[in-house]
Amino acid sequence: MATQVKPVLHGYFRSSCSWRVRIAFALKGIEYDQVSVNLVKDGGQQCKVKPMCFIVCRCNIASLPQLTDQYKTINPMQQVPAVRIDGITLSQSLAIIQYIDETRPRPPLLPADIQQRAQVRMISDLIASGIQPLQNIYVLQKAGEEKLQWAQHFINKGFKALESILKQTSGTYCVGNEISMADICLVPQVYNAERYKVDLDQYPTIKRINQTLMELEAFKVSHPSCQPDTPDDLRA
Amino acid sequence: MATQVKPVLHGYFRSSCSWRVRIAFALKGIEYDQVSVNLVKDGGQQCKVKPMCFIVCRCNIASLPQLTDQYKTINPMQQVPAVRIDGITLSQSLAIIQYIDETRPRPPLLPADIQQRAQVRMISDLIASGIQPLQNIYVLQKAGEEKLQWAQHFINKGFKALESILKQTSGTYCVGNEISMADICLVPQVYNAERYKVDLDQYPTIKRINQTLMELEAFKVSHPSCQPDTPDDLRA
Repeated sequence: MATQVKPVLHGYFRSSCSWRVRIAFALKGIEYDQVSVNLVKDGGQQCKVKPMCFIVCRCNIASLPQLTDQYKTINPMQQVPAVRIDGITLSQSLAIIQYIDETRPRPPLLPADIQQRAQVRMISDLIASGIQPLQNIYVLQKAGEEKLQWAQHFINKGFKALESILKQTSGTYCVGNEISMADICLVPQVYNAERYKVDLDQYPTIKRINQTLMELEAFKVSHPSCQPDTPDDLRA
Repeated sequence: MATQVKPVLHGYFRSSCSWRVRIAFALKGIEYDQVSVNLVKDGGQQCKVKPMCFIVCRCNIASLPQLTDQYKTINPMQQVPAVRIDGITLSQSLAIIQYIDETRPRPPLLPADIQQRAQVRMISDLIASGIQPLQNIYVLQKAGEEKLQWAQHFINKGFKALESILKQTSGTYCVGNEISMADICLVPQVYNAERYKVDLDQYPTIKRINQTLMELEAFKVSHPSCQPDTPDDLRA
């Protein structure tokens, strides 16, 4: 199934769903090209308050969305990420990650045990359907003035549930002692929580697993602070 | 993996995510028990404007959420559905459906072809992460006065993208000519769109596939209008 043509990731340095796909590529050791799709016009460079740019200042919110008509043909949903791979174009990060996993199986991103696989998908979906969509920039834009409170509300609601579930399922990582798609979802969501000033001390299991994962090379090289489209003033 | 103990679905007649799981059980011919978790106190029976109860009248919105502490131990996220099956408890409808599919493979709910599997997951996630979370009752409650407009905005945004994708992927059903998880997600989302008065004539492919699916027994028996917890005045 895999061809000699490198996959192309249409993403954005600070998009948590793009980061998920970057982690998957890094864990698999797959080389890929990146095309930056600017979710925020001028990439936040106008803003001097670095990591909280979307919330603290209003300079960029008003300019959303600035996606080109060309990108609509790549992802009609006009969101990132989208990946061109093996002759097809896929959107939705979990669908992309599972496709990568089924076509490039080593190392696996889903456990061999069926019940553990279900737990990995449950945790991944809790984040991907239950938290992230409610604090992404399109929704915050529509939520009006109370962006920070809105984001914190839904992240805290999700993290309370996630903490409780991880106490049952986790070992070193989210499900047992092998890295999985659940971990790929966890780290970018914790990054978002930090941007929205959520107090992570309430969630010791989430915090512990995130810290363990952030020691790993695949999570470091894919971090928003060191992507090709990361503005100079946001680089680590 | 399958045991003699019937699975138990904790759900709610009108929850679109619960309906997804009911369709999967029906397509597989799996018997299961249902436990009703009231998302709306008194099940909407106080309201005389039947299908639009959540939006048109305010009698029930104020009483959300009324979930018991007992249910928190079943699903810490305090949402439906959750399923007790084979000795484990799972939440998140797509994780549940894929678990059912992996343990009870006939008929399959994901295509054998890897690229088609990815398309099924992409469409399922577009609905499950990109549309449904933004028009569910918890979010509408927080969205304030403009509930109907909010729901319509996000359903229309998602359906425009979905219509475009389905023009590429569909045959008789969402992906080719076999029923899949994507179809299981489509029908309950169309039902929600109709409740929120979205004009489906804008989306001829969605409308056509939905009509075809609604002819099938598995989609009929699982419909919100004929569940054990459907109030008498909402029965078909």
